[in-house]
Amino acid sequence: MLAELCCKRRPGFWRMLVVAVCMALLGCLRAQGLQGHVSVVLLGATGDLAKKYLWQGLFQLYLEEAGKGHNFSFHGTALTATEQGQEVVAKVLESLSCPKDVTPARCAELKDQFQRLSQYRQLKTTEDYVALSKDIEALVQREGLWEAGRIFYFSVPPFAYTDIARSINSSCRPGPGAWLRVVLEKPFGHNHLSAQQLAADLGSFFHEEEMYRVDHYLGKQAVAQILPFRDQNRKALDGLWSRHHVERVEIVMKETVDAEGRTSFYEEYGVIRDVLQNHLTEILTLVAMELPPDVGSSEAVLRHKLQVFGALRGLRRGSAVLGQYQAYSEQVRRELHKPAGFLSLTPTFAGILVHLDNLRWEGVPFLLMSGKALDERVGYVRVLFKNRACCAQSEQRWVAEQSACLPRQIIFHIGHGALGSPAVLVSRNLFRPTLPGSWEEVGGPPGLRLFGRPLSDFYVYSPVREQDAYSVLISRIFHGRKDSFITTENLLASWAFWTPLLDSLAREAPRLYPGGAESGHLLDFEFSGGQLSFSVQQPEQLVPGPGSAPAPSDFQVLRATYRDGPLVTAWPEELIAKLADDVEAAAVKAVRRFGQFHLALSGGSSPVALFQQLATGHYAFPWARTHLWLVDERCVPLWDPESNFQGLQTHLLQHVRVPHYNVHPMPVHLHQRLCAEEDQGAQAYAEEISALVANSSFDLVLLGMGSDGHTASLFPQSPTGLEGEQLVVLTESPSGPRRRMSLSLPLINRARRVAVLVMGRLKREITLLVSRVGHEPKKWPISGVQPVSGQLVWYMDYEAFLG
Amino acid sequence: MLAELCCKRRPGFWRMLVVAVCMALLGCLRAQGLQGHVSVVLLGATGDLAKKYLWQGLFQLYLEEAGKGHNFSFHGTALTATEQGQEVVAKVLESLSCPKDVTPARCAELKDQFQRLSQYRQLKTTEDYVALSKDIEALVQREGLWEAGRIFYFSVPPFAYTDIARSINSSCRPGPGAWLRVVLEKPFGHNHLSAQQLAADLGSFFHEEEMYRVDHYLGKQAVAQILPFRDQNRKALDGLWSRHHVERVEIVMKETVDAEGRTSFYEEYGVIRDVLQNHLTEILTLVAMELPPDVGSSEAVLRHKLQVFGALRGLRRGSAVLGQYQAYSEQVRRELHKPAGFLSLTPTFAGILVHLDNLRWEGVPFLLMSGKALDERVGYVRVLFKNRACCAQSEQRWVAEQSACLPRQIIFHIGHGALGSPAVLVSRNLFRPTLPGSWEEVGGPPGLRLFGRPLSDFYVYSPVREQDAYSVLISRIFHGRKDSFITTENLLASWAFWTPLLDSLAREAPRLYPGGAESGHLLDFEFSGGQLSFSVQQPEQLVPGPGSAPAPSDFQVLRATYRDGPLVTAWPEELIAKLADDVEAAAVKAVRRFGQFHLALSGGSSPVALFQQLATGHYAFPWARTHLWLVDERCVPLWDPESNFQGLQTHLLQHVRVPHYNVHPMPVHLHQRLCAEEDQGAQAYAEEISALVANSSFDLVLLGMGSDGHTASLFPQSPTGLEGEQLVVLTESPSGPRRRMSLSLPLINRARRVAVLVMGRLKREITLLVSRVGHEPKKWPISGVQPVSGQLVWYMDYEAFLG
Repeated sequence: MLAELCCKRRPGFWRMLVVAVCMALLGCLRAQGLQGHVSVVLLGATGDLAKKYLWQGLFQLYLEEAGKGHNFSFHGTALTATEQGQEVVAKVLESLSCPKDVTPARCAELKDQFQRLSQYRQLKTTEDYVALSKDIEALVQREGLWEAGRIFYFSVPPFAYTDIARSINSSCRPGPGAWLRVVLEKPFGHNHLSAQQLAADLGSFFHEEEMYRVDHYLGKQAVAQILPFRDQNRKALDGLWSRHHVERVEIVMKETVDAEGRTSFYEEYGVIRDVLQNHLTEILTLVAMELPPDVGSSEAVLRHKLQVFGALRGLRRGSAVLGQYQAYSEQVRRELHKPAGFLSLTPTFAGILVHLDNLRWEGVPFLLMSGKALDERVGYVRVLFKNRACCAQSEQRWVAEQSACLPRQIIFHIGHGALGSPAVLVSRNLFRPTLPGSWEEVGGPPGLRLFGRPLSDFYVYSPVREQDAYSVLISRIFHGRKDSFITTENLLASWAFWTPLLDSLAREAPRLYPGGAESGHLLDFEFSGGQLSFSVQQPEQLVPGPGSAPAPSDFQVLRATYRDGPLVTAWPEELIAKLADDVEAAAVKAVRRFGQFHLALSGGSSPVALFQQLATGHYAFPWARTHLWLVDERCVPLWDPESNFQGLQTHLLQHVRVPHYNVHPMPVHLHQRLCAEEDQGAQAYAEEISALVANSSFDLVLLGMGSDGHTASLFPQSPTGLEGEQLVVLTESPSGPRRRMSLSLPLINRARRVAVLVMGRLKREITLLVSRVGHEPKKWPISGVQPVSGQLVWYMDYEAFLG
Repeated sequence: MLAELCCKRRPGFWRMLVVAVCMALLGCLRAQGLQGHVSVVLLGATGDLAKKYLWQGLFQLYLEEAGKGHNFSFHGTALTATEQGQEVVAKVLESLSCPKDVTPARCAELKDQFQRLSQYRQLKTTEDYVALSKDIEALVQREGLWEAGRIFYFSVPPFAYTDIARSINSSCRPGPGAWLRVVLEKPFGHNHLSAQQLAADLGSFFHEEEMYRVDHYLGKQAVAQILPFRDQNRKALDGLWSRHHVERVEIVMKETVDAEGRTSFYEEYGVIRDVLQNHLTEILTLVAMELPPDVGSSEAVLRHKLQVFGALRGLRRGSAVLGQYQAYSEQVRRELHKPAGFLSLTPTFAGILVHLDNLRWEGVPFLLMSGKALDERVGYVRVLFKNRACCAQSEQRWVAEQSACLPRQIIFHIGHGALGSPAVLVSRNLFRPTLPGSWEEVGGPPGLRLFGRPLSDFYVYSPVREQDAYSVLISRIFHGRKDSFITTENLLASWAFWTPLLDSLAREAPRLYPGGAESGHLLDFEFSGGQLSFSVQQPEQLVPGPGSAPAPSDFQVLRATYRDGPLVTAWPEELIAKLADDVEAAAVKAVRRFGQFHLALSGGSSPVALFQQLATGHYAFPWARTHLWLVDERCVPLWDPESNFQGLQTHLLQHVRVPHYNVHPMPVHLHQRLCAEEDQGAQAYAEEISALVANSSFDLVLLGMGSDGHTASLFPQSPTGLEGEQLVVLTESPSGPRRRMSLSLPLINRARRVAVLVMGRLKREITLLVSRVGHEPKKWPISGVQPVSGQLVWYMDYEAFLG
């Protein structure tokens, strides 16, 4: 009666009243210890995943929970017709296995119980869902129970999600007071946009707390142990878990299988979407997150995980190296019926360098690596600590427990590999870890070396009972542990992080590798200055590569003339190197002659490469005697990312030692307002120049050239700065931010040396045009750059100069 | 005739004329290929060093050079009577050995020739020196030669140096046109002062270019190979030899012998003076120096070596760990007849952390280690490169030549150890090095592991012919290669570097170690935040500790109250450490709450220690979100050494990353004039504070206290700043530079927290006085520091607080 009362849907006021009454009554029943009923609906019950893992996971759930006062029914469903489906499911149920410590007789008994609670039904139309719901209600009523909740496990292709979600929402929600949990399997979109759409679709049917997105890596025992380990070993880890002590973190998932037979999926996804965006990113957040005081709080864990995404430094093309096993394109051609010449660009191997910009992790490289057709199957997270020890004894006498000179590392070994099982390894010279009772200390295969050391150098712990990830996760769904699943926020944050990289790599040709042990060192990679590159620079080409463009190093720096001035032209890297050398030479010369060097720099992206080159490669640069001036500035606060000064700050000032008072930002932000005429910022800058720079003649001015022929912030037809006596002027840019401050042409032309840096294909047209025009600064301000007694040198890369 | 003409000393004009004529004639003789004569005078020819190395070195010199048109005579001298001395020398000459490739018959012949050129004579009085000089002149004349030069090798105790030097200078210089070279053996002083005195003494007798100070390590083949190696492998090393790639540099010299029998010397010197100040420091300069374009230029090499000293960061007590082998004190008691209770503080083991503050090496730890009674005898320099690789293959498949994941290192193996000979080792995954023909590639003992890897992982090169260091150096003296010796400048720079550390360690009790392999991990040490400490924290005390004076670390930081506010008092180092911790805690808290931290700093000497502490020990300090303000400033340009800002710049800003626009120097220098009222600098600063600091309430203001009770630049009876509404004021100091700009008391009192740092005995009186006075800012401005709603904390060292 109660079930009937409570589980029927009613409109409006009645509904409100009934809900209230039902909640009270249910609470009452629960308090009396009456059994709550949970229905598990496995959608796609005849599919591979279900057959391989999910039915077994449900059986496991039954074994664990049925004795604890819960009552279950299991509904396998699919589009398959009833009889056929029943046959498949019956076979699966027959093959279920019990834990090792259960006798065969008892196992048969338990399986029998489970089979009686399980049934197959076709679930296709809305009516089917209505019928299912009714049947559940009837069952609950018949057995004299109360309904605790319903789990719908979507083991179906994502295109089917929306229809199923609509049907569940409209016709199969449990009554008030009982919970609904829908379990979703990846892929959850293909990029940020599609993930948003999918999330919005699902959000129209389910509340956030009803959705359980599965990343089955979170159910792997070693991964699931990361947070408890960090929690239970807080005391030892507190002083260690930061950039002060961690050298690097490696998160690795290697496979030996390739994508054969799955290329229709794989060709669309590739390794980054398949493994890195989800599994490895989840692990990264578990390692990097701030540990909440109570790791038992799902809400706190999820909040802290989300914060990690806020600290991730954006990925750039240089953050990744990509590979593709050699047979892949052929497999794609065969399986997807592509033409003979088709070459896929889909990566099957990726190495990624991730940095976190927070106080805990700044500067620590997180290296993510995954690939197919590699030499071994293994997954692990390795935290390597810095070695800051110097040992007085000969290395032959170092003892694993004591020597500070031996590597110190903590490894969460996810599975496979030489070790063969999940494990947590802690170097003996670190500390003896505490693990829960469900883990035990083990010896491992004798003679085995891992991570550079014999296994005996580690404390090694493995789970007493190995558990499949799906069994773990099904149990967590049942217990409502949302922190083992991907929330919408979390999912979108991850896609927001990965999508720009995926976009920028979309047309990148991966390095080909033969696969297996034959790949040798071809896929080893290294990081330097935030960039990744393969260690082996020039692999023998295994098959003709997709591109045939000449490599930069094939060319030398060329010298020619442009507008009657000297021209230096080369590929970008050589060009920047040459310009940096020339700037340094000018600096050394000026300091030798005058004791100081006055350098005026432009903003924009091309100078950034120069700044980086100067910051990392020029040890003898006389920074302590260099004055830095700005050629132009946008009317934004200096700390605005749009500010030219901000680029200078980030890419140069942070890395070299220029005295504070030798740095001269443009005063675009006086009295808390931007470029107000009445603040006379331009005049103040002109005064400062006159006071400090002899004859207002800079030693070197670095300019760029816009595709409209502008230079500095002097745009065509500018009423100021192209002529006259003003040294510094306010101007207007045709594009935002519009207001600018700029050195004037007359001031620029007083310099001892002017360098104009022009790079990229987009400059080809203006380069050609300007090569032909005379002195027409009103039309093309760059044509007005003609130092009175100094030298003008053009630096152009081949793309700008030759197109 | 010529010899007679040229070698007699004459006064005045005649001398000038004769010199000119002689030089011309000598040039003429040389041009004709006539043999020049070189006399080598070995002072202390019967001593141990001479017997063991120097005679053999001279024989070697003769073998190498006699065939090249040089004529020699060798004069062994000592205080020993003639006959006795002749006997000793005859025995030594008999025992000389030829290189391996010389047949016994030929060897006997060569030895016979050498013996005929060598003689012993007593050299005691000035007359002896006159006689020696005459004999040489006579010999040269007799043989029809011209005199090329004279070498005097001082193999005598340093106390004898001055007398000998005086005699040589007065009575035994060669004639004009011939060179004089005096060769000196260490010790060259005991600290900076004594080294200066010794250098001044010698400088009154010899020109700098005449002196050859021997550090025999510079003659060891592997050490002598450092610069040529860097030169010949420039291409490979250019990109590697810097902080971007080098993880650390270890410079190690371990001995198994102890000081028994030598304690009278050792007790006075200890390991730092005995090994680190000279041998290891020389090696350090060879590794760290900028490579001159021409390493063949002695002058350029010496200049670049000297520059290294300019870049060395000053050592502090925390830069060292010290040990003493357990039997040492007993040996000293026995040999030096000390009383039974005597315990020596002389270190026999030291580990030192050196940093260089230049762009090439900033942040790279140079670890120097040496000791007696250790487990092995070995010397090496090890350059370990950063490992920035991630390898896709299982480690079992890494190949030494190719894998970027294996360690990359370059080792200059000086001698002994498991390898047993001088060698240069380069990891095969780096590059194949180029070495001169006198070095050959070798295999080394099979199965040997060194520096964590099998020897087969390295390219190993050894000298074709092993040469004793003294033979190498004697040859270099002959060829005038000054860069293999210690110049006066170089020597004093080294002492200037080491002396402050030696002073600060003078009363430090070294850790006792049993010696040999038994020392276990007792002497292993680690660095962190610029400090060294032993890895094993609490060794069992082997014998009762030596010192009975309480060490600063015996005291805790004490807490009390002062003027009703909390007081922190401790020894200076602990006090600064505590204050730095508190500043960081305040910063972290402020950034967490408000996103930024506003810190106002005072000038003067006490804050410098704080700046240094913050710069080197506080990695987690949120500099990027910290704003730095000045409490007060002198009216001088910011780059004036008197400027408070200059101190901040040098000791803090150079070392941390505060964004340019977060640094707020006081505008004391506007429109090219200093603190002009009409420039309204104080108002501008007040405006800036109001604009950026919420409620003009700094998060932390650091103040000092003058012995007249002034604080900031607010002096007694100041008409401005002690009250009123002005936030920033111009004031007058009773002492120069008189004009100041200062935050006012009302502004200071708006801070959330004020810290007053008072240090040194000179503050004792005012500290006592101020503890008793009430609120009388006109008399004692410091008494007006009473934050309205913030907290005031006093930080005083024991000397300031207790006197």
